[in-house]
Amino acid sequence: MYGGAGSHLSMKASEPSERVSLGRLGELGLIRRIRSSVAGPAPDVVVGIGDDAAVLSVPAGHQLLATTDLVIEDVHFRRASATPADIGWKALAVNLSDIAAMGGTPRWALVALAVPADTAVESIDAFYAGMESAAAPHRVTLVGGDTSASPGGWFVNVTLLGIHAGTPRLRSHARPGDAVAVTGSLGASAAGLYALEMGLDEARARGIAPGELAEITQAHLRPQARVSEGRWLGQAPGVHAMMDCSDGLATDLGHICRESGLGARVRLDRVPISPVVLEAARALGQDVRQWAVRGGEDYELLLTCDPAAAGALATGLAEATGTRLTVVGQIEARSGDVVFVGADDVPVTIRAGYEHFTGSERG
Amino acid sequence: MYGGAGSHLSMKASEPSERVSLGRLGELGLIRRIRSSVAGPAPDVVVGIGDDAAVLSVPAGHQLLATTDLVIEDVHFRRASATPADIGWKALAVNLSDIAAMGGTPRWALVALAVPADTAVESIDAFYAGMESAAAPHRVTLVGGDTSASPGGWFVNVTLLGIHAGTPRLRSHARPGDAVAVTGSLGASAAGLYALEMGLDEARARGIAPGELAEITQAHLRPQARVSEGRWLGQAPGVHAMMDCSDGLATDLGHICRESGLGARVRLDRVPISPVVLEAARALGQDVRQWAVRGGEDYELLLTCDPAAAGALATGLAEATGTRLTVVGQIEARSGDVVFVGADDVPVTIRAGYEHFTGSERG
Repeated sequence: MYGGAGSHLSMKASEPSERVSLGRLGELGLIRRIRSSVAGPAPDVVVGIGDDAAVLSVPAGHQLLATTDLVIEDVHFRRASATPADIGWKALAVNLSDIAAMGGTPRWALVALAVPADTAVESIDAFYAGMESAAAPHRVTLVGGDTSASPGGWFVNVTLLGIHAGTPRLRSHARPGDAVAVTGSLGASAAGLYALEMGLDEARARGIAPGELAEITQAHLRPQARVSEGRWLGQAPGVHAMMDCSDGLATDLGHICRESGLGARVRLDRVPISPVVLEAARALGQDVRQWAVRGGEDYELLLTCDPAAAGALATGLAEATGTRLTVVGQIEARSGDVVFVGADDVPVTIRAGYEHFTGSERG
Repeated sequence: MYGGAGSHLSMKASEPSERVSLGRLGELGLIRRIRSSVAGPAPDVVVGIGDDAAVLSVPAGHQLLATTDLVIEDVHFRRASATPADIGWKALAVNLSDIAAMGGTPRWALVALAVPADTAVESIDAFYAGMESAAAPHRVTLVGGDTSASPGGWFVNVTLLGIHAGTPRLRSHARPGDAVAVTGSLGASAAGLYALEMGLDEARARGIAPGELAEITQAHLRPQARVSEGRWLGQAPGVHAMMDCSDGLATDLGHICRESGLGARVRLDRVPISPVVLEAARALGQDVRQWAVRGGEDYELLLTCDPAAAGALATGLAEATGTRLTVVGQIEARSGDVVFVGADDVPVTIRAGYEHFTGSERG
């Protein structure tokens, strides 16, 4: 915890710098900085940053939700394209998305941050500011964490705690005949990543307009978790299984199928894709359906529901949050994987989402 | 979460190997392995590994405790001296110690693990087995986590959640005139680290007996968190401030002084040091008091209490847990730092504990 965990191996800054670095500020100085920069006391935080553990009040009648996600340099982001504020934002947002997918309310964050000892303090400040800007709209409080020098690059782990009353919507809750639906649209994050990896100058040279380029890169760097949508859908009648769409529709719907012991059929032509993403795919000569179905990191919500309720859910969600809900397929009473079909109901081969460790896309 | 967080940058195993590596097993295979290896369902775990977030039941009348700690290769341990099982054990134990220091009961762990893609699956299994062996005596359940390839070495982050009824013992609760006391004895972890860094063959050549060498290296690699002691002391009358002694007595008592706005005076000759550590210091020609006061990572509990209650606390703790409690000094009504004195009450200069980022000991 920020109270200070011991470390005894020698750790030197690799490139001594005249800037104020972490190596000069030290751990205590950093903790003081973090403590003074986070939002003031919240009524459900009995003890926040600065002791051995945070002490928190879970309201009566609520269950606790807990999720954790790693965000690692050169695995989840590159320093060349993500600012420290982007990294802070995204590290929190991906966890917000997990709480949203349970239909819960995010409350408290614990943040572990390891950075090279010569990292400028301004970068650390920007990281926490980015995280705070993602947390503030949801009134999430930073209640603890740990800091360390890193012998490699940036390493971030956020644990987010939330609360929930009622029945959480699990991946295993899909039923045969359910409609499969997603919030918002898919593919923008993959489009943004493609442009960032290509280089923004090159992307512009290929004819993407500046406004469109900003929209897709922001979708990748600063995803918006569907927190209010998750809370609304988590209480709406007819919703069965729910999860967030972080690894791509193909992979994530595969999780629901596996956990529910069922199969799914998705109409590729019904997968919602924004005009900006369509335009970017055209400009860059890429297959937009690959982005939408296997790209991942859109952090939309993926759910299955009573097909008779789908219309009312879409109307109700749009009224409550302004977010669209689109039916893209159905759950089938067979144990198996996800089948993608065209408008003619003929199966289409779609490679599945990203697989950690192997670095390859699964067939 | 283990459910699978997306990642889209290319990540290759740096040294392809014939062993079954993470790169071959893949993330889903690893999650299945973890899920099947952890202890079965606990009554307070509504949803464990495998969904977007864990769903947990905090019992009525209890507050939630949350703490997180990083354990990083070449910062907190070296692969040359710590086995994967040691790393797993320690990553959990340091968090158990934080919950213990609040007087709480540890319940649920979330584990983020990043390792090189070519790491053998046997190493991962051993890591989780080591963690499980530290968790099992306290009936702590692994309820979630995240896994990733690491472009550097091993990065581990454990978030531990606990429960607590009553008033937590905070660092800020010291009062003028309080006795300062520690459980067990200090310096064994620093002695073990010294021997490990020197090399065990060299340590043996300097005359440390095998049994003694095993004792001090185990103290460093597999610390025992004082969980039952913390729970007992957290409810005992007369205990005011409490924390775990992870950064060394000098640094940690300094935290209590700063948070309480008070000073402290410690009698160096009263700091408890085990005969094995005394013997190791003699054999290695080291200052045993430096190990005991600034070494850190002993994970003993450090507390302040009503001086009139100290005797009853020591007797009661020994009867309840078998662990010794030793008064080493007192809290003074001055805002300042920790003063170490000899038996003659004359101040002794002691360098303070380890400082992250700078890699230096503070004076």
